[in-house]
Amino acid sequence: MVEESGILELKSFFEPKSVAVVGASRDIRKAGHILLRNLLSFGFKGRVVPVNPNTQQILGLKAYSRVDLIPGDVETAIIVTPAVFVPDIMEDCERKGVRAVIILSGGFSEEGEEGEKLEKEVVQIGRRAGIRIIGPNTTGIINTENGFMSSFTKFSNIIKGNVAFIAQTGNYGGIVLEQIFSSHLFGVSKVVGLGNKCDVDETEILEYLALDDKTQVIFLYVEGIKNGRRFLEVAKKITKKKPIIVVKGGKTDLGAKIALSHTASMAGRDEIFSAACKQAGVIRVSDFEKFLDLAQALSHQPLPKGNKVALIHFSGACLVLGTDMIIESGLKIAELSNISIKKLREITPQWHRVSNPIDIQPSIMMAGADRTYQVAVNTVIEDNNVDAVIVGIGAVEGNCPDDVMVLGMHKEKPILFCLYGNKSLSEKIGRDLRKLGYPVYDSLRRAVDVLSVMCQISKRMNLMVR
Amino acid sequence: MVEESGILELKSFFEPKSVAVVGASRDIRKAGHILLRNLLSFGFKGRVVPVNPNTQQILGLKAYSRVDLIPGDVETAIIVTPAVFVPDIMEDCERKGVRAVIILSGGFSEEGEEGEKLEKEVVQIGRRAGIRIIGPNTTGIINTENGFMSSFTKFSNIIKGNVAFIAQTGNYGGIVLEQIFSSHLFGVSKVVGLGNKCDVDETEILEYLALDDKTQVIFLYVEGIKNGRRFLEVAKKITKKKPIIVVKGGKTDLGAKIALSHTASMAGRDEIFSAACKQAGVIRVSDFEKFLDLAQALSHQPLPKGNKVALIHFSGACLVLGTDMIIESGLKIAELSNISIKKLREITPQWHRVSNPIDIQPSIMMAGADRTYQVAVNTVIEDNNVDAVIVGIGAVEGNCPDDVMVLGMHKEKPILFCLYGNKSLSEKIGRDLRKLGYPVYDSLRRAVDVLSVMCQISKRMNLMVR
Repeated sequence: MVEESGILELKSFFEPKSVAVVGASRDIRKAGHILLRNLLSFGFKGRVVPVNPNTQQILGLKAYSRVDLIPGDVETAIIVTPAVFVPDIMEDCERKGVRAVIILSGGFSEEGEEGEKLEKEVVQIGRRAGIRIIGPNTTGIINTENGFMSSFTKFSNIIKGNVAFIAQTGNYGGIVLEQIFSSHLFGVSKVVGLGNKCDVDETEILEYLALDDKTQVIFLYVEGIKNGRRFLEVAKKITKKKPIIVVKGGKTDLGAKIALSHTASMAGRDEIFSAACKQAGVIRVSDFEKFLDLAQALSHQPLPKGNKVALIHFSGACLVLGTDMIIESGLKIAELSNISIKKLREITPQWHRVSNPIDIQPSIMMAGADRTYQVAVNTVIEDNNVDAVIVGIGAVEGNCPDDVMVLGMHKEKPILFCLYGNKSLSEKIGRDLRKLGYPVYDSLRRAVDVLSVMCQISKRMNLMVR
Repeated sequence: MVEESGILELKSFFEPKSVAVVGASRDIRKAGHILLRNLLSFGFKGRVVPVNPNTQQILGLKAYSRVDLIPGDVETAIIVTPAVFVPDIMEDCERKGVRAVIILSGGFSEEGEEGEKLEKEVVQIGRRAGIRIIGPNTTGIINTENGFMSSFTKFSNIIKGNVAFIAQTGNYGGIVLEQIFSSHLFGVSKVVGLGNKCDVDETEILEYLALDDKTQVIFLYVEGIKNGRRFLEVAKKITKKKPIIVVKGGKTDLGAKIALSHTASMAGRDEIFSAACKQAGVIRVSDFEKFLDLAQALSHQPLPKGNKVALIHFSGACLVLGTDMIIESGLKIAELSNISIKKLREITPQWHRVSNPIDIQPSIMMAGADRTYQVAVNTVIEDNNVDAVIVGIGAVEGNCPDDVMVLGMHKEKPILFCLYGNKSLSEKIGRDLRKLGYPVYDSLRRAVDVLSVMCQISKRMNLMVR
């Protein structure tokens, strides 16, 4: 899919043996300090050398005044100085034989003519020297596997997983990651902030992630695609094996104008991008929140093998609305087998009908919440007419399972949860469900939307058997 | 707007001087126990009498075996026995001169023919005796003002406010209320669960709430409207003074079928309902989560007087996407006055452009988060070209205000917040913002959707001055 040499080149961005941090700082509020601390905090085993002409030592590491004065190899440089110094630093890197540079600094083509000139100069030096560049105007790389990163977000922790992000944005990426990690939403394999994309672009990174066995799901935020035809070709192949989900900014004229001043991107005609995504099997969604919703499900849950849904809910109103949503999303309400009806009958009062969607409130009253949820979930999972399950839980004492372990860990069909009710109780239940690998949403709408996308992905990957 | 007699009748549902709880129970898990405890816990000052033929005393109150054996007046009865006993109890109520009955019991017309017969019998007795009925198959009433309620949800607390709910659902209503209260989302004036609507319907309750000075915003969940023409007439008048937001179940054929077995409602043709809402100035949204999002804003924030939005965000990507969303929602990006540009210039590094949408990350780096948010928010609020403000905060140390009090309490223009980042820090900031009356969302999409509806409401109420 990608030439060997290309992959080898990009490897220096993800697995460098040695890295110089140019613009490293002793000031704990500065990006040049935080990213150095991140490199030291999350297990990176390579050599780390701070570069700063005005200090001897930062965070216990000896600092050098220039990259080309560092003794020994320097494979990769992270640059976090003001933009005007970057061309000179690139020349230092050239002299040192650096192979990859991540430029975090802003103030390049996104800020007008002068910046554009500066960026051109940087690209020229890179080409001449054979140095690949990520950025400028970005937060660059996070590789959770080996702890290598150029992010200057203060993370509370890092969770390893199979979800990769490519984002033409830096700051937001960091803050959303901190949200993902601190809320234990899911684990991440690699993050790539692309910024102005003066050299490395989204398609090259896609090719790299396609071959990365730590990555199973790829999310992409772009404001413009550099080479549409190549993107289309590459994405088309990848989406048969790994889902690609994309959010694109700059749909409206004004949005496109803002994109130009954000990452100097040409947004292009939106309908062309949409058509290309469809053709390439790329899922396009409208905002970042959909990313998080989807990633929760795709990182742990199996893809559905059909579109027949069992809806288990304590609220009659949600059964009505949920049925509407499921039908309107192109999914189907599964018809339960006789065996399932019989099993559910055992926990249902005589006066109440049993059918899918399954109104479990009468069962909760009769058999208790633990037994009701256990029987209901396990019954529909075992039913051959059911491909996927959505479960509503009302977190109010007596109405919800005391221990969600009663549900068991199911890996054969996707199960998505909607959780409402008392704040602290629903947080506890949500945490426990996530530990079991189940995605949890605050609304039926979000769960149905996610399941609908899972069906699209399953179709693209030829996993639908009915 | 409503006949005096009608209001007087309905008053017995909200402000009874005395109430009998028929089916009151000593079993702490039963609805008949929890609702009695709720009546005693949340400040209801009227007389409360438990009715249960098998016990002498419940929760310290003397119990009677039948309603008509209670000495003194009984204005209102709450019935929570099995359905089959309800006709007899209605006759007891007739003999006692009870004026209003709330029937919580399920097993009536929503469960088939036999239940339908039972329900008809109950209605007949009610008509004959002049007893108004709410239900059956509901949780009935909550009046936060005086603590009167028939809900059997275990609430952790109750928050008084100006938002009323009318819901053709009981259980979910209770659980969502507990979510609202325990998360301190907003305060509630009245809640009415309508159930099967064998007598009192949504339109009568709308008329009552229109005159209730504690209620400023009305939310309505219905599965079917009993008298479309009257609903339309009444709603048309109310929406000029108070917004009505509606969610309707049973849009699809299958959804409509489920509605029939939930509350025996005829969903009717969806396009007709949609057209009626439009004509009546009723806002129709697709799910409950939109209710909560809207109520957060409508309960405390002023309505916008125009559609020009200032977007303040720390993320360039969110400025791009937010601009797209704002434009696509029919709102506009405000052009800032020269005075505003000058004020913002003071906190912005020289190399960075100042315009709306406002990218504040460079300012946060230069002037700190407290000063940046303070200057940015206060500047756009004072700008005559701005009608509404959306603010993005990234809850990561150093990037967000230490104290949101710096923003001040603004009541002249709506301000909506989007909050991302570290879980515990964003919860703290969210709580503080809500205390100041600001709505907080986990996504730009939700904030823009809410603001767009606020503009519709403002137009309907003739508050748009430009």
